[in-house]
Amino acid sequence: MPVQPARIERDLNAFAQFGRSGPTAVTRLALTPEDRAARAHFIELCRAEGLEVRIDRFGNIAAVLGEWDRPALLMGSHLDSVPNAGRFDGVVGVVAALEVIRALKEDGQLPRVPVGVVNFTSEESSRWGRATLGSKALAGVIPEDELMAYADRDGITFGQALQENAGYDLVDGPRDFGPIAGFFEMHIEQGPELLYAEKPVGVVSHIAAPSRYKVFVKGTAAHSGATLMGRRKDGLVAASELVLGLERLAKEVGDAVVATATIFSVKPVSINVIPGEVELGVDIRGIEKESIGRVTDGFRKLVADVSARRGIEIEIETLSEEAPVTLDAGMVERLCQACEQKGIPYLRTVSRAGHDAMYVARIAPTAMLFVPSKDGLSHNPAEFTSLEEIALGTEVLAEAVRSFR
Amino acid sequence: MPVQPARIERDLNAFAQFGRSGPTAVTRLALTPEDRAARAHFIELCRAEGLEVRIDRFGNIAAVLGEWDRPALLMGSHLDSVPNAGRFDGVVGVVAALEVIRALKEDGQLPRVPVGVVNFTSEESSRWGRATLGSKALAGVIPEDELMAYADRDGITFGQALQENAGYDLVDGPRDFGPIAGFFEMHIEQGPELLYAEKPVGVVSHIAAPSRYKVFVKGTAAHSGATLMGRRKDGLVAASELVLGLERLAKEVGDAVVATATIFSVKPVSINVIPGEVELGVDIRGIEKESIGRVTDGFRKLVADVSARRGIEIEIETLSEEAPVTLDAGMVERLCQACEQKGIPYLRTVSRAGHDAMYVARIAPTAMLFVPSKDGLSHNPAEFTSLEEIALGTEVLAEAVRSFR
Repeated sequence: MPVQPARIERDLNAFAQFGRSGPTAVTRLALTPEDRAARAHFIELCRAEGLEVRIDRFGNIAAVLGEWDRPALLMGSHLDSVPNAGRFDGVVGVVAALEVIRALKEDGQLPRVPVGVVNFTSEESSRWGRATLGSKALAGVIPEDELMAYADRDGITFGQALQENAGYDLVDGPRDFGPIAGFFEMHIEQGPELLYAEKPVGVVSHIAAPSRYKVFVKGTAAHSGATLMGRRKDGLVAASELVLGLERLAKEVGDAVVATATIFSVKPVSINVIPGEVELGVDIRGIEKESIGRVTDGFRKLVADVSARRGIEIEIETLSEEAPVTLDAGMVERLCQACEQKGIPYLRTVSRAGHDAMYVARIAPTAMLFVPSKDGLSHNPAEFTSLEEIALGTEVLAEAVRSFR
Repeated sequence: MPVQPARIERDLNAFAQFGRSGPTAVTRLALTPEDRAARAHFIELCRAEGLEVRIDRFGNIAAVLGEWDRPALLMGSHLDSVPNAGRFDGVVGVVAALEVIRALKEDGQLPRVPVGVVNFTSEESSRWGRATLGSKALAGVIPEDELMAYADRDGITFGQALQENAGYDLVDGPRDFGPIAGFFEMHIEQGPELLYAEKPVGVVSHIAAPSRYKVFVKGTAAHSGATLMGRRKDGLVAASELVLGLERLAKEVGDAVVATATIFSVKPVSINVIPGEVELGVDIRGIEKESIGRVTDGFRKLVADVSARRGIEIEIETLSEEAPVTLDAGMVERLCQACEQKGIPYLRTVSRAGHDAMYVARIAPTAMLFVPSKDGLSHNPAEFTSLEEIALGTEVLAEAVRSFR
């Protein structure tokens, strides 16, 4: 039996009720009562398929079909959302994984390894200001005590939320699910590349990670009439050189990198005052260390050059410098093969948004599959992926899992 | 007798008490009780010197020595201030004019024409959002009914303030002071050119007027990770091209023009979002129509070019396009000659800030004299010009008036 769109639709609609905040809007922040309800429904669906459910110390939920006595092949994503989110980001990957299990059970083409579904805790950064907490913890990237102490805006820590809001007492729970044979994450693209390429699915080979900086341009405010051009220390023209230079550096490197600058503040702001201090935010993302390095190094050189040439102090504060992730070539190949066997056109692509797969990739062979996002939108009630598109992605996922027979 | 610094000091100190808001700070908005007190003190000082005082329908006060039966040679500036101002902007020109009258009376070198002092109403834009109201009205640049209806933030009109706050009932008063033989305005420079040139006075030959624009850059916000460089409509990079291009255009023209851009807003502002809409303020000032035209025309071409090349709509709203003022060559020459006769080094310079002299120049031969501003500062309690510098400027002013003998 192939995957059944009707079951996918039923599950998507069910999850959209938890934290429903508008006709197509969902607000289901991690480890809130809304998320707790979604997690409970997920466990129910897993048990209905006879899966063995395990919850680790960070609230990550994995459910495996058959004897979980060997490393399992897992699929999944996350059920939490940003505020005023759409109905697809994360959920699609969990629902597809469940449907793959059902389809494989029905056609009997089960893989040699135990196969299961996973829901990672707190993928979105909305509540604790940092993303992919569950997968980072599973991969050992955040120390457990540090994670448990993260406090949200109301002072509620991750640890408290796990116990009090989500009702888990996991202090003695498992630190992880043991070795993982492999991991597939299906996710909405959150960008327009599939639309531009007119392909229904994307096989993701790399995940870019952002390097983020704050740049403080310390010019001098002065009267716009009384100060000759040659005597100015205009913070905004210096900042403008940085904004344009960053664009040029990224374009020189090509599609392996994107770079974005924004302006956090200009002081003072008045039409008859030369702007003095400007604060910029800079976000550089790429899939190869070398390309990212060319842009970040070039940007630092540009900052030094503009500062020296204009006689304006410019300070760079590093907010984050994460490494890009190359996904497992074998797992990527299985997804490509699955597309070819099904006769489904696909785009080899990269993800420039972060995903749980970035961290699972540190402990298990991992790959990702994208389904289209209408207008490239996400984190928005207008986020949309059609049932046909989700079902097609689920077919590919099922076929890739069958390759483990 | 030469001018007497002690009398200048006494008058400056007296005016600094009206609206005193800190050790060196003054808040004396036009036609408030504080301004009314300063105006009353001014009239008292004039009458003490035997001057004939006239007040026009706009509250401008002129006081002339001797028979005011022919066009008078006037000197002066304004007594109102911005909020949290210093003690020199405007006041220095009024006090110097009074001292010139006293010195001329004492040395008997009175000019052939009646000579007098003037205080213009509401030079600063702080209360009614527009500058130089009294001199504009005197020159017939603002229709009287329009001026009287200007309302401040509390809804008090200029007309009400004249009658209620300043105690004038001027509805039937004179529209003007009749023909004016000439006008000299001494003012603090509000800029650093005298300091750079190491000259104690500046003779102003031109007054620049600002052309001001709002520029709306209508880019498209998008995810900073998911949108390739070539697919962006980044409002901030487009705006940055305009900021840098404006600087380049002004530098190409040379010191006859200054141009400044500021950023009023960027939407949205988030480190992981490509900025969409950016609103710029642009201020272009020059002393020659042709130079200003080169920058404003160049800027409009640049906007069209950036808009076409980036596929981003950019709209320009004109806020003001005032004409620069060339001061009277004969009056300018009298100031230069006065400096030479006194052996005082001077800088021929231009004003890029607006002054009452801009509008008086439309109805009478007019010139301006600058005295230094410490650190180029004004509109600030740190504003400072030394008594020696003010006395030296007053000497020059007296000598220029003597040339009318």
